[in-house]
Formats: sequence, structure tokens, C-alpha cells
Amino acid sequence: MTTTSPLAANTTLSELPLREELRGQSPYGAPQLMVPNLLNTNENPYPPSQALIDELVQEVSALAHTLNRYPERDAEGLRAALAEYISEQTGVAVTKENLWAANGSNEVLQQLLQAFGGPGRTALGFQPSYSMHPLLAAGTQTEFLACPRGEDFRIDIDAALAAIDKHQPNIIFVTTPNNPTGDVTSLADIRRILDAAPGIVIVDEAYAEFDDGPSACELLAEYPRSLVVSRTMSKAFDFAGGRLGYFVAAPAFVEAVMLVRLPYHLSTLSQAVATVALRHKGDTLATVAKLAAERDRVQARLIELGYQVVPSSSNFLFFGKFADQAATWQRFLDNDVLIRDVGVPGHLRVTIGLPEENDAFLAAAENLVEDIQ
Amino acid sequence: MTTTSPLAANTTLSELPLREELRGQSPYGAPQLMVPNLLNTNENPYPPSQALIDELVQEVSALAHTLNRYPERDAEGLRAALAEYISEQTGVAVTKENLWAANGSNEVLQQLLQAFGGPGRTALGFQPSYSMHPLLAAGTQTEFLACPRGEDFRIDIDAALAAIDKHQPNIIFVTTPNNPTGDVTSLADIRRILDAAPGIVIVDEAYAEFDDGPSACELLAEYPRSLVVSRTMSKAFDFAGGRLGYFVAAPAFVEAVMLVRLPYHLSTLSQAVATVALRHKGDTLATVAKLAAERDRVQARLIELGYQVVPSSSNFLFFGKFADQAATWQRFLDNDVLIRDVGVPGHLRVTIGLPEENDAFLAAAENLVEDIQ
Repeated sequence: MTTTSPLAANTTLSELPLREELRGQSPYGAPQLMVPNLLNTNENPYPPSQALIDELVQEVSALAHTLNRYPERDAEGLRAALAEYISEQTGVAVTKENLWAANGSNEVLQQLLQAFGGPGRTALGFQPSYSMHPLLAAGTQTEFLACPRGEDFRIDIDAALAAIDKHQPNIIFVTTPNNPTGDVTSLADIRRILDAAPGIVIVDEAYAEFDDGPSACELLAEYPRSLVVSRTMSKAFDFAGGRLGYFVAAPAFVEAVMLVRLPYHLSTLSQAVATVALRHKGDTLATVAKLAAERDRVQARLIELGYQVVPSSSNFLFFGKFADQAATWQRFLDNDVLIRDVGVPGHLRVTIGLPEENDAFLAAAENLVEDIQ
Repeated sequence: MTTTSPLAANTTLSELPLREELRGQSPYGAPQLMVPNLLNTNENPYPPSQALIDELVQEVSALAHTLNRYPERDAEGLRAALAEYISEQTGVAVTKENLWAANGSNEVLQQLLQAFGGPGRTALGFQPSYSMHPLLAAGTQTEFLACPRGEDFRIDIDAALAAIDKHQPNIIFVTTPNNPTGDVTSLADIRRILDAAPGIVIVDEAYAEFDDGPSACELLAEYPRSLVVSRTMSKAFDFAGGRLGYFVAAPAFVEAVMLVRLPYHLSTLSQAVATVALRHKGDTLATVAKLAAERDRVQARLIELGYQVVPSSSNFLFFGKFADQAATWQRFLDNDVLIRDVGVPGHLRVTIGLPEENDAFLAAAENLVEDIQ
């Protein structure tokens, strides 16, 4: 019954009454290519354990007969499981009232921008950083202000405080460990940013489990009116396909996002499967040490080959320096290794994969040393 | 490790720098109460078939080892399955390029409002209708204009055309069958609205499978630049817990929402499970005829008891008339029947459930005839 050519395919996007600021834009997203070595989206390369899979299948089997009913709207069971995990992982005791969850940290951040940003309000970020922050700001009509990082890609705290003082932003993003550079912002610097912030500060800890240092959750009791710590199960937690992001904050922040969240935003299975994954955190997080060791091995070898590498506390490395990073990105692809060009001149980002994938990357990097500027 | 009292519980929402227009608001949502007869959210009361559950468990089992990887970002497999379903169900041949899917029709509608509405733009709806339309407009800073329906709760086409002419809205919502009233807007009237519309027209067909009439998809070839038909798997499709909404339109509309969608918005399991559910549409949609027959039985009995009932082409009935519908809603609850007070003076909405649930509702309705105004 379906045909091969779409209905109304002759109508073009330019003929639709799209918002003006969207005209000429392209959809966000890294290329999804079929390449032997996929080292471009900072996923954890280790598949879930068999014990996790077995319990997950059992849980889905038990719940499937309820799929005709709406999910538990406020995901309280999942939020309690996340609270238990955060309490253990950060040493900061929190409850489900401190936790909020959505379909990936992008949705969590979008909800925060809807509640605390929006038209007439501003968000400040320290660039380069997670490229969705400005896009989420644009999607919620929040003006995004970019404060450049220092030459070493770390936050220059004096420049940061000057930018905060000048712009008085409603929202400040601090990504630590930072994506794409992998560096960490100290709690001392985060505290200075919190002291200066006139609005809220979102500390994006998507890669926190790869860092041995303290979580910004330690500052929540001191800054209950301004601090939100966002996290994800997509990275260390090995659960990118499950789409589960969350934040930790004072319960009032949870009340705030409930005013803008779409009702029943988290499906029955998303809630159940994430809860099962949290029960198997031991297996999953055991992969973090392996990845950290591989990261250090790859970093040492890149330096040996003559590359510049930003010291990383995450599961990826930011390296260069290239005359034309887009051309070098293509040459890595020609060597069967897909890495990421995040648009920072002279630099590329590689995700730490399985040892054999990292070997393939290093072999390509060895072939491409002539690209080093 | 978790404590019983939340961290930073003393901070109140009023102390946070929330957007002004959100202050004093309450989260959207019907009460989720434990009551023997749940007839308040227009779910399909029949659980998924065992064959569907078996295949779903098998599919989850096969996919679980990939959960460390991001999902297929553009959900092309699922969109192809939806295209096949729509082609069969409406007789209008479409392809995956005509289909877009997200976590419930709320997310689909939010994306359309982000792309075609937003600050400085307006959306017009015919009230009472789906209560999320104005909330989604507010969440995207789109000004919502309410044009009242006639006394019979049907769209008064002359008033509608006058309102369109006066306000020149960027977006028009037509819900058919309408929620909460159950009535259908004819294709002839939808055509007149499309002819008058300066922007886009979203025909919300969340309950289409319960109606024998034609789908607005039949008008897509004629109105490729303005018509979008939104649908959901939450109602007839028996899949409220799976959270899957979609729209059918010219491919340019899909290109448009891809500029605002959150990347990887649909989880691996959401895509897979919905695709399995579509394969079992025969079993699922067999329940629609049973529900339609029950709807007609309940409607006839309510009229016999002296209630006014809006003729319904959906899986719910809108009935009255009460001096104080909130008080009558509570009395239904006291009779173990949870129905819905949608805030329309004098009226309540009841979802058609299993025959025994409908009997319990009718028994309560018989007890409450003295509430009829």
C-alpha cells in the first residue's frame, strides 16, 4: 500500500511559514556512518552485562501487559533509585525530591531553560563546550552569550567573573569534565561562579563518573537557590540507547520543571529499564576504570607521536593541532576510524573505545602525523 | 545512604528566579488515584495481546546488548512502519518521509509550535478542546487565541472563519474527534479552515480510529504547505505507556521539526516496541469495535437516565448537565469511579472502559441522577 515516492514531496521547506531564525539551518547531529571503529559520540563501548540484560527482559515481560495505561507520571520509583545512586556516588545524601529525570539530559536542560530562561533572558556558557547548550537556548528563545575559555581550553576564572558581572546572565552553564576538551573545573572555581551568579548555575556533569574528583553536588546545601547539577546515563552508565538524563537540586527546582514538563514524558519502559540499569551499577561502572586506563594509554601515545592533547578526566581526548581539522577528520575516516570534528579550529575529539578500537585509532594517528601543524 | 528528608527542602519555589508567567501555576495532569474503575484518561482498557507481548519481549531481548549505543537518531524504521499503517488505515499512500514520531503527541505538537509558533506568533483553537494545546503554546511562548465552539460544542464554522480572518493566526488547531466532547469536524469544514488559514493547520486526530469517517490525510495532497495531521498510539492503539505520537505531512514539515527536535529524542526501546505494536495492529484495533459498541450502549443508557450527552465518535462521552460538576465528579469518585472534570462548567467526561467498568459507571450515574440540572 505504501508507495516509493513521498506524498507532496515537491513542497520545499522554504515554502513553509517557518520561524525566520530557523531558515537556512541544518539539523544537529554527528554523522551516523557504518565504520569499523565508531569513536565519535562518547558512548561507553562495553555492552550491558548479561545479568542486566536478563533482569531487563524479565522486567519488560512483567510490565508489557500494562502498556495500554499511561506511565507513572512523575517517575517516583526511578527518581528514588537515582537518589540512592547519587547519594552513594557523590557522598551527598539526597532523596527522590531532589531528583528529576527526562528523556536524556537534553530534555532536562530544555525544561530548565523553559522555566528559568526564555524570551528576554540570557544564558552564558564557556566555549568551546557542549554544543547543545546554545542550541537548547535558541530552541527556548533564550539569548546565548559565549565567554571564551583560555588558550589551554580551561575556564579563565577572572574572564568568567568579568563576563558574569557584565552580562548578569539568568543561567550559567559550567560543563565539568568539559565536552569536548575533557578538563575539570574545580569546586573552588564553581563556588566563585555561584557567588557571582545573579540567577541559576547548571553544572553539567555528564562525564562525572570518569573523574575522581568531587561532584558539585557537595555545594547543593550551600547554594540551594541557584545550583542545579545535571547528569546522564548515556556515558559512563552505558545506557545511551535508553535516553535517561536527570538533575539533582533543591526540591523547589523539581517543582519548577513540573510546570513546563510534558505530562507522561517518560515511558513505562524508559522508567523501568533505567531502574534495572541502576541496580546493576557495579557491573557497569567497573568499565569506567578500564576506560580511564585506556584513555591514559592513548593520551601518552598521542603525545609521543607529537600531538598536543588536553589533559582529560573523561572518556575522550581533544587533540591537535591541525592546519585543517576537517581534512584530517576525513583522513581518519579513510583509515576506518570515525572521530568527531566539533568545529574548533585545529582540533578533533576522539572517544575512548575498546582496546582494539583505540589501537586502530592510534595506527591511523601514526599514519597522519604529517597533518600535525 | 539515602535519608528520609530531602536536601535543601527549605528553599521554596517562590525563592527561585522562575519566569514570571509561571508563578502561581500548578502542574498539568489528571489525578493518578487508586480507584477500582479508572475512566479518566481515555486509555484503551484492553491489555496488549499475548502475541504482541511475546514478540515485544523477544525484540527487547535481541536489542538489549546495544543499549550502550545511541538510538537510530531519525527513527526511520519506525517511521516506515507508521507510514504503512497510515496508508492502510486512511487509504492515503504515504512514505516514511511523510512521517515524524516523538515521545507522545505532546512532544510532536511542541516541536511544531517551536518551528512555526513562538514569540510574536499566535495559535488559534476552538474551545473546549484538548487542554494541552494552550499549555504547549504557553510553553513555547506562542500566544494562544481561544475561539469558542457553539452551544452544541461543535465548531461554528462561520465564527471560526471570522476568528481566522480577524486574528490571522500562524497556527490553527482542529481536534477531530474533539477531546473532551467527542464530536467530529467534517472534511468540508476542515477544507474551509485550510482555505482561510494564513499559516499552518494542525488537525489533531488522536482519536481517529474510533471514527468511521475519512481522515484529514485525504487533504494532504491538496494542502501540502499548510496541513499537518497529528496522531497518537496512546488511545485506540492501546499503547499509552509506550509514549508514541506522530504526524503525517509533506516531507518539508519533517525537515522543519528536525531543526528543533532534541537529538536522539526517541530511545532504542521506544522505537522498537512501537514497531512491534504496529505489526500487531490487527489484534489491537479489534478492540476498537468493542469500545464503539460499549460507547453507544453507555450513551443510550445515560440519555435514558435523563443526562445530556454530546454525540461521540470517540472512546469517551461528554455529559451533563450539572449545577456543580466538581461536586458531582467527587460523588462519582465516592462511588469508586474516577472520571474527568476538564473544567467545562456543568459537564464531565467519562472514558469507555471494559463492560464491567462501564456498568459500574452507569450504576453510579443512576445513583446521581439528582445531580442533573
